[in-house]
Amino acid sequence: MRIVEDALDANNTIAHANRGDFDRAGVTVVNLMSAPGAGKTTLLERVLPELGHVRVGVLEGDVAGSLDADRLAGLHIPVTQLNTDAGFGGECHLDANMVRSALPALALDDLDLLVVENVGNLVCPAEFRIGEDARVMVCSVTEGEDKPLKYPLMFRASELVLVNKVDLLPHLDYDVEKFLYHLESVHPGVPHMLMSARTGEGTEAWRDWLAALATRAGAPA
Amino acid sequence: MRIVEDALDANNTIAHANRGDFDRAGVTVVNLMSAPGAGKTTLLERVLPELGHVRVGVLEGDVAGSLDADRLAGLHIPVTQLNTDAGFGGECHLDANMVRSALPALALDDLDLLVVENVGNLVCPAEFRIGEDARVMVCSVTEGEDKPLKYPLMFRASELVLVNKVDLLPHLDYDVEKFLYHLESVHPGVPHMLMSARTGEGTEAWRDWLAALATRAGAPA
Repeated sequence: MRIVEDALDANNTIAHANRGDFDRAGVTVVNLMSAPGAGKTTLLERVLPELGHVRVGVLEGDVAGSLDADRLAGLHIPVTQLNTDAGFGGECHLDANMVRSALPALALDDLDLLVVENVGNLVCPAEFRIGEDARVMVCSVTEGEDKPLKYPLMFRASELVLVNKVDLLPHLDYDVEKFLYHLESVHPGVPHMLMSARTGEGTEAWRDWLAALATRAGAPA
Repeated sequence: MRIVEDALDANNTIAHANRGDFDRAGVTVVNLMSAPGAGKTTLLERVLPELGHVRVGVLEGDVAGSLDADRLAGLHIPVTQLNTDAGFGGECHLDANMVRSALPALALDDLDLLVVENVGNLVCPAEFRIGEDARVMVCSVTEGEDKPLKYPLMFRASELVLVNKVDLLPHLDYDVEKFLYHLESVHPGVPHMLMSARTGEGTEAWRDWLAALATRAGAPA
């Protein structure tokens, strides 16, 4: 549909402008996506305090409220809330223009890494680039093994897949190998990490991945 | 935004036409919504075979694939698949026009109850009426207690809230009372039912609710 194509073209133009601002400030940007309740905020609570010398900030996307921003504020890092119901029609995703509207509130020059926590949704966020360096998605084992097949664009769009809530595996009818088989079928070779935000199991790999990305992309050209 | 309002107006017009067709055929229609992986299909597998004399059919909405329709086909009830990526731009919800496009494939005169399983998404499906009698949402306890506050429109739009996966409560940090307090704050008085599609606990209430709705609405005027 032409209207959709135009909207995506405009989005890409603005995403490119965001990318320029991020580059000038030397900030690496991660777009973190998942279904509602998959554990994005808890995973950030786990690893952001352990990033050492990396100066990190968070842009919190939600339809309404500031619950996640309030939780992260306890980490003593800069957190900016972006609500899609105020002026953006209650959109189910963040797009480049919404992120751009928040840039003045972000002290980019004081950051090495910006994590954008997208609206909980497995469909639309994957269609809108925001000027990020990497897209990371969280998939909880409570959601079932079939999700890559049902929401293929999201899994294809992601550079890293975090498989969360593995502490619940003993209580679920969930076959990790089956999930990984489906994941590989829609996005061959995409890296994944198994972890539990609740217990902390496996989260070091995610922390180290973030730190390495921030260091690599933030290096002077 | 005017474009959004126009789209919603057009949707309501088509929803009204759907409603007329459902009424003429004497079919009660339930729009079943939830986040991805909350257990909509499993809840249908549990109760649809136990509806006695109620003749039930299912319209399965998914972005891609027919995994859920394949699962339900084993119940020997009519199941029609509707994919939003084929001709509908990969939409993250069902709207009245998509449902209308599927009506010729549904033998409405042979049904008392049609359950429309929407795309897994806690935002957009709530904005689009499809001509249904009732909107029912499923919320899994694995998603956390805060979801009514973060996705208020979905919780407000629903006539019944099914709280699923309660068999996992012993393994979660989840406070049912806190969830119900949040639910009551965004949709005062909305009925809810606690259940586990996996164990079957509490699903009789959902079965009886469906049977009563089909009998009441399907009665001759």
